Amino acid sequence: MARLVEIHDAADERLADYRDLRDVTLRRSIEAEHGLFLAEGEKVVRRAVQAGHPVRSFLMAPRWLDSLADVLEATDAPCFVVDERLAEAVTGFHVHRGALASMHRTPLPDVDEVLDGARTVVVLEDIVDHTNVGAVLRTCAALGVDAVLLSPRCADPLYRRAVKVAMGAVFSVPWTRVPEWYDALLDLEQRGFTTVALTLADDAVPLEDVVAGLDRVALVLGTEGHGISPRWQATAAHRAVIPMQPGVDSLNVGAAAAIACYVVTQRG
Amino acid sequence: MARLVEIHDAADERLADYRDLRDVTLRRSIEAEHGLFLAEGEKVVRRAVQAGHPVRSFLMAPRWLDSLADVLEATDAPCFVVDERLAEAVTGFHVHRGALASMHRTPLPDVDEVLDGARTVVVLEDIVDHTNVGAVLRTCAALGVDAVLLSPRCADPLYRRAVKVAMGAVFSVPWTRVPEWYDALLDLEQRGFTTVALTLADDAVPLEDVVAGLDRVALVLGTEGHGISPRWQATAAHRAVIPMQPGVDSLNVGAAAAIACYVVTQRG
Ligand SMILES: C[S@@+](CC[C@H](N)C(=O)[O-])C[C@H]1O[C@@H](n2cnc3c(N)ncnc32)[C@H](O)[C@@H]1O
Ligand SMILES: C[S@@+](CC[C@H](N)C(=O)[O-])C[C@H]1O[C@@H](n2cnc3c(N)ncnc32)[C@H](O)[C@@H]1O
Repeated sequence: MARLVEIHDAADERLADYRDLRDVTLRRSIEAEHGLFLAEGEKVVRRAVQAGHPVRSFLMAPRWLDSLADVLEATDAPCFVVDERLAEAVTGFHVHRGALASMHRTPLPDVDEVLDGARTVVVLEDIVDHTNVGAVLRTCAALGVDAVLLSPRCADPLYRRAVKVAMGAVFSVPWTRVPEWYDALLDLEQRGFTTVALTLADDAVPLEDVVAGLDRVALVLGTEGHGISPRWQATAAHRAVIPMQPGVDSLNVGAAAAIACYVVTQRG
Repeated sequence: MARLVEIHDAADERLADYRDLRDVTLRRSIEAEHGLFLAEGEKVVRRAVQAGHPVRSFLMAPRWLDSLADVLEATDAPCFVVDERLAEAVTGFHVHRGALASMHRTPLPDVDEVLDGARTVVVLEDIVDHTNVGAVLRTCAALGVDAVLLSPRCADPLYRRAVKVAMGAVFSVPWTRVPEWYDALLDLEQRGFTTVALTLADDAVPLEDVVAGLDRVALVLGTEGHGISPRWQATAAHRAVIPMQPGVDSLNVGAAAAIACYVVTQRG
């Protein structure tokens, strides 16, 4: 059973994990230094615990204790009980979903483990926006993508905003980072995946035509500003486009991922 | 030619339109009271002006004057020239895309005008998040949806964050609000559109089956929390689902819109 600890002082050092959640730069350094991430909202907290992430602590207003009673029961981490004003003073925003938990990060799985048995894989290269990373994971979970691989510099799926947007999918879809960027797509080809770069390149072929009849597929999506790097464009087996109206720049990467995952998971 | 006005004091009253851009509540009241909206970034400012919205003023750092010279040339609104620190002090964030413009809202077009000649329409009911509204408009522009209708309470496509995410699509896709919520879908049926509610209702049929062979279609998407209202679920001609994995709650509305627009714009 979690130890309930009432706290009345926003400056209390035990609340350090929850400090200034809107300050991305500060948070990145706190989270990296302590190897932690934050789960927010009853549902996400429960899924994070069920996924096996050890809890450092909980932070919640009294009225959330009941709905998370089973989760609190199963750990002996401290649960800091504060009123909603204090929660807002510490975190810097109105915690309208009530419950927060600070969780230990666990080591990322190997690529081998994540790809084991997978038929459809999504690969993200250097996505910058945490909302986009979270949205893609949510889509992958919903449509039955088997695994997600991230380039070494892709934004962190365990950053609070990504976890929130993904609605818990970061805990259900197997994902990891590829250890090395340069030959990552060639490595996937050697593992038996046909790599398909989603791109606006002039020689790109409509996606439906590219994926028809393929067995194991890795769909590759590029960064918000510049799209897929020249190296990955060149090493992908195919370059595929989602046809658009003339004069339009591009789809948002989350929208492109949704359409591409739909098309690829429906392939013959 | 716009009048260039150098300003060195963040409290200068002429900068009122640009005050505290991150404060949603304050901004809503400033924008409603003055009938204005903000365009941000060179590309969006240019598109807003080209779309015929009259300019109240511009705000930019000196280095942006050149790239918008043609736009400034064509109006006689004031252009407030400030250094980047002052822009940050006024707006409350780092204006990394340099140029801002405060534009007059123009009256929304009639539903008749927006639907004139349209074959594929998207209808949004009470979407709350401006990012989602912007993302859906961007997708509609890219995939060739002819018009977008919004329920009376749907979030504002001209709110800064929506305009930014839409990448100018708010100025290219014809859109308006329906004047009345209750019978809006029946009204669309009378205009010759088959209304298709995207929903997780138990009797929903896979979307591809529903739209095959339909001529004029109106795809209806629901609000983030509760989905489409019971009234609209009941008055839509069809209820359609994007098939998902068991145990998954839903797709994000932006992802659902992307897939649905793709499917419907590819119909026979
Ligand atoms: C916002 S786009 C980047 C646009 C970038 N200017 C480019 O030329 O690639 C982000 C990613 O979404 C995917 N994407 C967007 N629109 C697409 C389309 N119509 N077809 C294929 N992929 C698309 C690509 O993977 C792209 O790297
Ligand atoms: C986040 S969902 C709302 C979920 C809500 N709990 C419900 O049951 O409808 C927002 C909107 O996206 C659309 N949507 C999301 N997933 C969908 C799916 N798998 N099939 C059809 N529409 C979907 C629907 O229009 C829905 O109203």
